[in-house]
Amino acid sequence: MPLHIDVLTLFPRMLDGFLVESILGKGIESGLLTVKVHDVRDWATSKHKNADDRPFGGGAGMVMKPEPVFAAIEQLQTPGCRRIYLTPDGTPYSQKIAGELAQETHLILLSGHYEGIDQRIREKVIDQEISIGDYVLTNGTLPAAVVIDALARLIPGVLGEEKSLTHESFTGKLLDFPQYTRPAEFRGMSVPDVLLSGDHAKIEEWRNAQRIEKTRLVRPDLLK
Amino acid sequence: MPLHIDVLTLFPRMLDGFLVESILGKGIESGLLTVKVHDVRDWATSKHKNADDRPFGGGAGMVMKPEPVFAAIEQLQTPGCRRIYLTPDGTPYSQKIAGELAQETHLILLSGHYEGIDQRIREKVIDQEISIGDYVLTNGTLPAAVVIDALARLIPGVLGEEKSLTHESFTGKLLDFPQYTRPAEFRGMSVPDVLLSGDHAKIEEWRNAQRIEKTRLVRPDLLK
Repeated sequence: MPLHIDVLTLFPRMLDGFLVESILGKGIESGLLTVKVHDVRDWATSKHKNADDRPFGGGAGMVMKPEPVFAAIEQLQTPGCRRIYLTPDGTPYSQKIAGELAQETHLILLSGHYEGIDQRIREKVIDQEISIGDYVLTNGTLPAAVVIDALARLIPGVLGEEKSLTHESFTGKLLDFPQYTRPAEFRGMSVPDVLLSGDHAKIEEWRNAQRIEKTRLVRPDLLK
Repeated sequence: MPLHIDVLTLFPRMLDGFLVESILGKGIESGLLTVKVHDVRDWATSKHKNADDRPFGGGAGMVMKPEPVFAAIEQLQTPGCRRIYLTPDGTPYSQKIAGELAQETHLILLSGHYEGIDQRIREKVIDQEISIGDYVLTNGTLPAAVVIDALARLIPGVLGEEKSLTHESFTGKLLDFPQYTRPAEFRGMSVPDVLLSGDHAKIEEWRNAQRIEKTRLVRPDLLK
């Protein structure tokens, strides 16, 4: 069954290019995935279509109001769909979560303002909170795109070559090995001999050793 | 001095919407930041403008060739610029790195294919490797946008209200406190009394307690 994703954001145009380019465009073309981007303001009922307001208790910035978001989610949601809020204080996104989401049939991704959204939204109409990393962005629209991009390539048939998923970063909690392509010699720099040897067992051994070494060097936390 | 960012990618259109919307569009308009997206294929010299080829040693997928990327970076680079490669096996991006990059005057961001790029590029014309998180994307173009979005809002003057930076996730290694806006009562759910009290010391105390509790619950690793 194809996966449908609704994205709710105050910046719908941010995803214009993302939806047509790259692997995602291919997945959408092939009918394995549909993505629809909605402007939260379409559910605002005030005269000026306001979707945000000042925070209670003081502080700078604006907070997304509950009414338009409740109305949007209540209109879009289907039985069994998963409603996700993108926020830096959510659970860190991972290949594992991407794999789980790739098996769903309907996701609603809510992109918040960088100052946050009314807490009542999070308590009542959100099932899962995801962070794409420990940094703060202007809003959750890019994170929604990141979540979609990572899960889209895990849907069978979206990537042309299934095999390309078997070796990559985070497979077996290791980073990827170094890659080389033609020319074999470039400005005096040569491709490692082993890769030209045709000895597949040796190549596999070299690549595994490189993965372990790189992971130790750059991300020792993954080996714990 | 304004910051100029060159983005090198095989999917230049992916960033069309990103560059005009949101805070980034404001930073660009105000002249504090300029971003130019380049197609790596413009530096390819082969008849079909190929920028990738099959990996030595076997394996699925395609690897970015050294020649076009060397040529692109050598043409774009300036003395003192920082050349960054976006890759899942790089150093995890953080508010600290975003703050450092926001002080530079020229960045070159190289977006790789998901299968990787020729290792000689990484060894010779890249100064820093950044990962936006422990998941694999189809290519590095969204990560380039994420890096830009997080650093852009740290450039003085890009965000309207400077004060809005003082309280947010990862300030003091804590996640953010819950936010509420009007209406004070919505479908039987009320805003916590303390936020309506006008007692700023109490509000601050409540918010700090909430930050610690949320961090303990969702991200105990930040408290270590």
